Amino acid sequence: MSSKTSDLGPFFDPRSIAIVGVPTGAYRFGGMSFLQKLQENDFPGRLYPVNPKAQEIRGLKAYPDLTSLPEVPDLAIVAVGARLVPSILQECGRIGLRHIHILTSGFKETGTPEGKRLEEKICSISRERGLKVIGPNCMGPYCPSSRVTAWGAIPGLDGPIGVISQSGGITQRFTEYTCSLGIGTNKAVSFGNGSVLSSSDYLQFMAEDKEIKVIAMYLESVQDGPRFFRLAREVSKEKPIVLWKGGESEAGAATAASHTGAMSGETQVWEGFFRQTGVIRVRSMDEWADTITALTLLAPPKGKGVFLVGGGGGNSVAYSDACVREGLEVPRLSDSTMERLRESVPVAGSIAGNPLDMFRVFQDSEYLAEILELGYGDPHISMIIVDRLIARKAFHLPDLPDATPEVINFLKERQNRKPTVFTVDSEGGDPELAGEGALMRREFCEAGIPAFPTLKRAARALAHLFRWSQQTGHARAGL
Amino acid sequence: MSSKTSDLGPFFDPRSIAIVGVPTGAYRFGGMSFLQKLQENDFPGRLYPVNPKAQEIRGLKAYPDLTSLPEVPDLAIVAVGARLVPSILQECGRIGLRHIHILTSGFKETGTPEGKRLEEKICSISRERGLKVIGPNCMGPYCPSSRVTAWGAIPGLDGPIGVISQSGGITQRFTEYTCSLGIGTNKAVSFGNGSVLSSSDYLQFMAEDKEIKVIAMYLESVQDGPRFFRLAREVSKEKPIVLWKGGESEAGAATAASHTGAMSGETQVWEGFFRQTGVIRVRSMDEWADTITALTLLAPPKGKGVFLVGGGGGNSVAYSDACVREGLEVPRLSDSTMERLRESVPVAGSIAGNPLDMFRVFQDSEYLAEILELGYGDPHISMIIVDRLIARKAFHLPDLPDATPEVINFLKERQNRKPTVFTVDSEGGDPELAGEGALMRREFCEAGIPAFPTLKRAARALAHLFRWSQQTGHARAGL
Repeated sequence: MSSKTSDLGPFFDPRSIAIVGVPTGAYRFGGMSFLQKLQENDFPGRLYPVNPKAQEIRGLKAYPDLTSLPEVPDLAIVAVGARLVPSILQECGRIGLRHIHILTSGFKETGTPEGKRLEEKICSISRERGLKVIGPNCMGPYCPSSRVTAWGAIPGLDGPIGVISQSGGITQRFTEYTCSLGIGTNKAVSFGNGSVLSSSDYLQFMAEDKEIKVIAMYLESVQDGPRFFRLAREVSKEKPIVLWKGGESEAGAATAASHTGAMSGETQVWEGFFRQTGVIRVRSMDEWADTITALTLLAPPKGKGVFLVGGGGGNSVAYSDACVREGLEVPRLSDSTMERLRESVPVAGSIAGNPLDMFRVFQDSEYLAEILELGYGDPHISMIIVDRLIARKAFHLPDLPDATPEVINFLKERQNRKPTVFTVDSEGGDPELAGEGALMRREFCEAGIPAFPTLKRAARALAHLFRWSQQTGHARAGL
Repeated sequence: MSSKTSDLGPFFDPRSIAIVGVPTGAYRFGGMSFLQKLQENDFPGRLYPVNPKAQEIRGLKAYPDLTSLPEVPDLAIVAVGARLVPSILQECGRIGLRHIHILTSGFKETGTPEGKRLEEKICSISRERGLKVIGPNCMGPYCPSSRVTAWGAIPGLDGPIGVISQSGGITQRFTEYTCSLGIGTNKAVSFGNGSVLSSSDYLQFMAEDKEIKVIAMYLESVQDGPRFFRLAREVSKEKPIVLWKGGESEAGAATAASHTGAMSGETQVWEGFFRQTGVIRVRSMDEWADTITALTLLAPPKGKGVFLVGGGGGNSVAYSDACVREGLEVPRLSDSTMERLRESVPVAGSIAGNPLDMFRVFQDSEYLAEILELGYGDPHISMIIVDRLIARKAFHLPDLPDATPEVINFLKERQNRKPTVFTVDSEGGDPELAGEGALMRREFCEAGIPAFPTLKRAARALAHLFRWSQQTGHARAGL
């Protein structure tokens, strides 16, 4: 296998795709669903379903095998049974088809001698024939700008994120999650067992890809530890890498073995990896998405002092605790800021300072803008978290105007603002509130301003941003 | 001040309420909003607005002072300026009005000599006159069954929860949150500075209240440490107490001082408190609500072994990790369970075992019921977490039937089931998905089955339930 990764491009921008193993009949996940999604999403290239028993599938001419295609396609998606995969790879080699995604599962992840033998066979054929293979046991490439969107967020949205993942389901949910916030994915790859192309190959490729600004990874194992370590350390200096390592616990590692045949590795080894490479460690879908959101939309902060705006009394206390727990600080404001603040905050029922517990910021966008300017001018403050309420009966706010559009306008016009994020709480079992909250968070994110459902999640994302900036020296140039 | 708490009842079930300090004019938070909410929520008792300058307020006769009322009301809500509060308390003492809620702020929480002096005055008058005082600087009592719902979830829902809190805002949100899941609050009290009646008084009262099964607390400080410790240890043997301690960090403690004049206390002291009393510690709104939900709806589990059902490959790995991180176990299933499981799980594309990665459970409620029965019969398993998908485009599930109603029916009919909870993920910026998720979680919770937005939150809530059961000996009798 060549370690040159520069020619992984065709996976994400193929002019033609053969789908090997497309059944006819009722809708089923596999070759059929991949073909259907590519058609529905207006894939602009040529599609060749391969099935020796069919003449036509979904309005397209079907071919009995790869050899009988009218051209050598840029990409083959292989969805036949596991035992047939080696012969398909041989056929690819013969016709010079070099980019192959093996969707099929049933290899080493089964733990059976048969599965292992088949996987070894895939590896040896690929090596001999010089094939680039994603998989087996995975969803393969995903690229909204090329309409290679047979899975993941559909129709998808182009953007700055690159995703390298051993789980199709997790990647699907991640692209859907970030896409729903208006933050797009440039390229994603679900690579399953990773028996031919490895996480390092994809990382090198995405490191060199100028469209990709932030790299999100979900890994259960690493094939070539030293190479991956060197690469990750190098890449994360310029492009942040946010890595969710699955199989941390013994139970998780055992599950990873049956999922992707992974040997998950020692806890201490991984701890050293994160410490020495500057790669950001996350441990859940929401932490992964939140951190990517912050890294995508925010400039590096200079320090870890946060100004907390909004809140209410109890929340101000709880929010301070949450920031400190995440490794941030909630410093006193400078004397001159305090002087200006006291002019507008009444003594009773509010708290002038940091946190600022001042109901007026919820209703009055001009006042909120003044408060934000105080924060941007205060040398103790590097980041700002603003709480946004959704007006509702319980809050004694029968007619609270929604100042969100004005707030967004102010921030969009404010050049070089310090990293500023919002929290919009809409949790629980009220569908209307849940919908309004999702909408408001999306409004903010689409305008380039991160918004999160809880303060803890906002603080965690900012803490990751701060530590990455500091470790890689970006904090020196920060705001 | 009497330490007899048995007569706190009138706060939550008054036949008549005087609201002292109801302005006329435009809607404003305070005496006016409290009066209006009580009227809107059909408070069945008598309401007396007190304002020396008004004849009539919102259709009710207004009185110049408490002395001129036609009866001695059961409760006074005091909403006049801080300086006027002592004279109102004197007047209460003179007419024999003993239950008083002071909404007014501007006391020791301001940090000013004037504020401290006024608060001391409140204490000494209350002591001399034998007054029961909630506050100052708080939202006071809340009780849906008596329609004392001038704040908090409106109209509110009666249920098994008792809330004791130093923050009105946090309590408001909590009652709203749990109410939206169909889990009601029997009584809540926001008691602010707690200068007369203390957290111990409320705890003792709610401990004796048979309507209350679970106690939720938010505290920034404790006035009488030894009494509170003894009480908490005693009460939590029978009624779980879930305590969110605000002001844990230095920044949080400083904020607590300006919020409720609290001295937050040493970290080590609080750690010892939690260890020795069996009180459950939480640190955020969602953890608080999740834990109360689990304690309210579930029987104690016998052990900490969880069966994870649903998932997908990557999720199965990540979910195992999350359970272990929260202190639970994901044990191997017994041999006989495995034997029966293998009959129905295909080798490729699924993982038979624990976690069970088997797509069929999402679609086929009868099959899910069979799987749950396997878990209930397996001696290694004490709890079950089931993942529920919401059908959508990205999942290759164009026509996934929603099996939720059938699943709920099965569980409702299954007596003595082991603790079983669901996760329904609907996070991100898609308002429709967010609404559907909230609705599905509510459906489950209203049927007595906890449902959470993420697996981590489900696991955390179950871990709290397990530890409480174990510490208090309820695990021995568990399922």
